[in-house]
Amino acid sequence: MIAAPRHQMMSLAIQPCVMSRGSAVQAVVSPSQGEMGTAHSSGAGTRVMIIGGDGYCGWATALHLSARGYKVAIVDNLVRRTFDLQLGMDTLTPISSIHDRVKKWAEVSGNHIDLMVGDICDWDFLEQSMESFRPEAVVHFGEQRSAPYSMIDRTRAVYTQHNNVIGTINVLYAIKEICPDCHLVKLGTMGEYGTPNIDIEEGYITIEHNGRTDTLPYPKQGGSFYHLSKVHDSHNIFFASKAWDIACTDLNQGVVYGVRTEETMADPALINRYDYDGIFGTALNRFVVQAAVGHPLTVYGKGGQTRGFLDIRDTVRCVQIAIDNPANKGEMRVFNQFTEQFSVNDLTKIISTEGAKLGLDVNIVSVPNPRVEKEEHYYNAKCTKLRDLGLEPHLLSDGLIDSLLTFALEHKDRVNMDLIKPAVNWKKSGVVDAMTNAAVSK
Amino acid sequence: MIAAPRHQMMSLAIQPCVMSRGSAVQAVVSPSQGEMGTAHSSGAGTRVMIIGGDGYCGWATALHLSARGYKVAIVDNLVRRTFDLQLGMDTLTPISSIHDRVKKWAEVSGNHIDLMVGDICDWDFLEQSMESFRPEAVVHFGEQRSAPYSMIDRTRAVYTQHNNVIGTINVLYAIKEICPDCHLVKLGTMGEYGTPNIDIEEGYITIEHNGRTDTLPYPKQGGSFYHLSKVHDSHNIFFASKAWDIACTDLNQGVVYGVRTEETMADPALINRYDYDGIFGTALNRFVVQAAVGHPLTVYGKGGQTRGFLDIRDTVRCVQIAIDNPANKGEMRVFNQFTEQFSVNDLTKIISTEGAKLGLDVNIVSVPNPRVEKEEHYYNAKCTKLRDLGLEPHLLSDGLIDSLLTFALEHKDRVNMDLIKPAVNWKKSGVVDAMTNAAVSK
Repeated sequence: MIAAPRHQMMSLAIQPCVMSRGSAVQAVVSPSQGEMGTAHSSGAGTRVMIIGGDGYCGWATALHLSARGYKVAIVDNLVRRTFDLQLGMDTLTPISSIHDRVKKWAEVSGNHIDLMVGDICDWDFLEQSMESFRPEAVVHFGEQRSAPYSMIDRTRAVYTQHNNVIGTINVLYAIKEICPDCHLVKLGTMGEYGTPNIDIEEGYITIEHNGRTDTLPYPKQGGSFYHLSKVHDSHNIFFASKAWDIACTDLNQGVVYGVRTEETMADPALINRYDYDGIFGTALNRFVVQAAVGHPLTVYGKGGQTRGFLDIRDTVRCVQIAIDNPANKGEMRVFNQFTEQFSVNDLTKIISTEGAKLGLDVNIVSVPNPRVEKEEHYYNAKCTKLRDLGLEPHLLSDGLIDSLLTFALEHKDRVNMDLIKPAVNWKKSGVVDAMTNAAVSK
Repeated sequence: MIAAPRHQMMSLAIQPCVMSRGSAVQAVVSPSQGEMGTAHSSGAGTRVMIIGGDGYCGWATALHLSARGYKVAIVDNLVRRTFDLQLGMDTLTPISSIHDRVKKWAEVSGNHIDLMVGDICDWDFLEQSMESFRPEAVVHFGEQRSAPYSMIDRTRAVYTQHNNVIGTINVLYAIKEICPDCHLVKLGTMGEYGTPNIDIEEGYITIEHNGRTDTLPYPKQGGSFYHLSKVHDSHNIFFASKAWDIACTDLNQGVVYGVRTEETMADPALINRYDYDGIFGTALNRFVVQAAVGHPLTVYGKGGQTRGFLDIRDTVRCVQIAIDNPANKGEMRVFNQFTEQFSVNDLTKIISTEGAKLGLDVNIVSVPNPRVEKEEHYYNAKCTKLRDLGLEPHLLSDGLIDSLLTFALEHKDRVNMDLIKPAVNWKKSGVVDAMTNAAVSK
């Protein structure tokens, strides 16, 4: 268990956010027990299994759905916590054990979440979980989700592709055999597309070639063994949806930022993880912590790398929208799940500007790019389907940085400076066990 | 050991092909020891590791290259032979053990082939093999290569994707770490492309979209967990070639037919395997055996399924051409490796016509399609790159059927009638252990 002592978490519960310096910010939203328990939606009552429900996106999604009356089961092998232990890392926020999280959630909301601790690569465990819970929707976050982690060494590249690909094959067989009407909502990544020199469509592209036309899966160019594992998943799901008449939605998610959702802020024991290290920290979250502790923002190379981004409050809404509007049977529907595009240089500019408002002197440094990627490129990805279904995005410009920055400042005493530099070099990924030094930048 | 008694093999060596009925056919070509040992090519002396060198294509390739002066090592875990044992199947031809094969080849040709028995998913084994042999080219046939096998049940779907994907990742790491200048020649499949409604290019397609243009990996639509495993390999290799500056050639091979190559016919102990069962038998080889034993040719559904085909004598030449003309470092070059396109109905017509010349009354029956695939579709795949490099195809119309048919007639006493019907249904692939009845059609 990595969670901080209980008294530290409780102190968060009874105080509004306190800043080290600067102006007042929004208080944490803490709905009453009655509000949490009755915030139903059109999908209330739906039985949703959330694989990876102890993770960053999974936990927030589990509570979001539970608060709205969905019957939620969390399936997780907790290996994400093991990665932290093995690599000597920790989340910025003091997270509780999954057992305490679920217990506290029942107290706060009055809603019970089923907890099944086990590995979906273990077929017997998955089969029993599916048979006992009988989900109407499975949300599959249960994958190793870090590109740098997958590039530490051969062992972790193999682990990532095995774990992700085989886990998803098992989920497909479980749906086919046990709950054939269950809707699979699978988390993919925008990184599956790479950075092509043409517009990125949502999953499929209509190609006219030599006088003929077809609509085909969009060409994929994953940039790490992690990204590639999700490319493989997409191909497997596309096949299985047709062969076995399964309803699937592939959510190609952008880079998620933020930590606050209404439910995870309702009690300190419910707080979400916030990764800022060079392996699991997503770009914007990492920059924000660097700004908070006065470390220069570490831009990889030229900083022209452009990606899609979204607030974690939109992640949970997107998943709900997908569940409430299921794919047709036999269809793999693809949504690009992000709300705005930014280059790395765009992000550092925004953080500099917003940081200055809080009295922070934000410096930026270009470090040698540890990845193999284009640093200047065209990028224009479509993301209209989720908005057409009702998504109202939280935009980065609407004070989010302010709230994220103050959050990081609040927890800055927990920052381990060893963790905030790039830790994994794509070209150096080899066969030597790099476990002991992967997370510690030199 | 599955090989037939030695006296049976020897009888092949001293007799030309004997037919049960019909006219005379070509005698087996048996070059003398001197010819085999000195048939050098421009690549003579090149150190070539053939992973999967005990298999159908791998064995023929190993001998082809060894006869031409290449220094050959065979790496194989012999699991293909285990599949036969487990499923109660056997090759039409009585094949020798790999140990006897290599020994006999040394006697016949004077050329030594290194033999390393082990599994490339076992990193320690692969590392030691690469370090001891130091190949200049690795030809990677070492994958589970049957679509029906991958669809028997969940266990075999998982086995296929794990074995193929992880094995190839290991090979990529081995090249990067041990022999960075080694050229990877990887066997893919034309089945990676599926059956799009536009022309199939060789690996990449230039797409014009919304006024912009890019050349991207051709969209993939694998039709089984086996085909998908090769789709995954292609994506992983594409990434690794760029990230690690490795030279790779991906050979997207069509359906191979035939069994005779100059070297494998040089002695009965060198004879190649010939699979005609519903799991490992390729379409044309299977039809030929059905015709030989008087069983109707089992066409799946409407028979409009069209694919690329090639003679195994062209397979070995294509691999040699790829080795002799290596890819650039940092490049994944893709060749479509087939010589002619036929629909299933085209094949049955040719076999009927040719069979009649041998006095065979060939009947055709449509059986329910056990696969999930289009039975009528557009198909036009490019295959010019290997011809540009010098491939001179053996065409099906040039007497090959005649020679294949007589070969099947010669061995018809070994045909197990249980094995020649479709054995695996795509839609029924489930979680129950289907090992005992998968190969036995009902």
